[in-house]
Amino acid sequence: MVILGIDPGFRIAGFGILKKEAKQAILLDFGYLSMPSSKNLLIRIGMFHDFFTSKIEQWQVTDLALETPFLGKNAQNFLKLGYLRGILYLLANKHKIAIHEFSPREIKQSITGFGGASKEQVAQVILQLFPAIEKPKKDDVTDALAVTVCSLWKHPQL
Amino acid sequence: MVILGIDPGFRIAGFGILKKEAKQAILLDFGYLSMPSSKNLLIRIGMFHDFFTSKIEQWQVTDLALETPFLGKNAQNFLKLGYLRGILYLLANKHKIAIHEFSPREIKQSITGFGGASKEQVAQVILQLFPAIEKPKKDDVTDALAVTVCSLWKHPQL
Repeated sequence: MVILGIDPGFRIAGFGILKKEAKQAILLDFGYLSMPSSKNLLIRIGMFHDFFTSKIEQWQVTDLALETPFLGKNAQNFLKLGYLRGILYLLANKHKIAIHEFSPREIKQSITGFGGASKEQVAQVILQLFPAIEKPKKDDVTDALAVTVCSLWKHPQL
Repeated sequence: MVILGIDPGFRIAGFGILKKEAKQAILLDFGYLSMPSSKNLLIRIGMFHDFFTSKIEQWQVTDLALETPFLGKNAQNFLKLGYLRGILYLLANKHKIAIHEFSPREIKQSITGFGGASKEQVAQVILQLFPAIEKPKKDDVTDALAVTVCSLWKHPQL
């Protein structure tokens, strides 16, 4: 089973890919897609689609993990986040991938043991779990790894 | 130039396709995609994608017309509308189609001459413009035709 966790965004989209083998979790890939703000929405949606299509095919992803979105102060940003999630749902449909969603609180609880943990506390645990990786330049990467690990732990059958 | 106007929805997605030829507008196709509520979101997104991919290819669509969405009472519905819009943006990117968006007020103004017109008034004008079509069973169809016609009239260069 190969889980792809994504923290989608129109500027930076962080991701992590974990493989469950026997009782071990192997970190196959992680990083982020950076999309220049000079490109219009149409182009960025195409980039996002193509980038994650190639990750899914390269690693033969079986499960997709996402954080449940909440409406913030900006309804237009919320709608646009929907665009990216629509692309991920389409990829899941086309590649027969299961989707798992977790609230921010569930993810924090699962990673740190405390649902009210800060972003930094979550990042710290993630870095302890994977000592081989250095602190990523972008929070989006540790956020994506957190949802990936949460999905692994919440579905031990995976 | 071939304009596809869509009124996206997870149960019913209305559409209209108009071709501009010389000074005439020819109605090539119209109707709706009905998605059973027994199917999950993933499957419906796949159906929506495949249906409009085939319409775009069949009629060699060059322009896509949509109504600007507004946040209603249900934030989750708004987000899900974003999923469908994300699919349409992806199709536009992949098929090199231009996207045009109009507010509900702009559409009503353009069709009836009055921005505060009712759905029924808009439908009436649409049926007068295309006497060959009978009153469709679904409002979604006349809504989609309204945004298609609006796009045609607002961009006379098309």
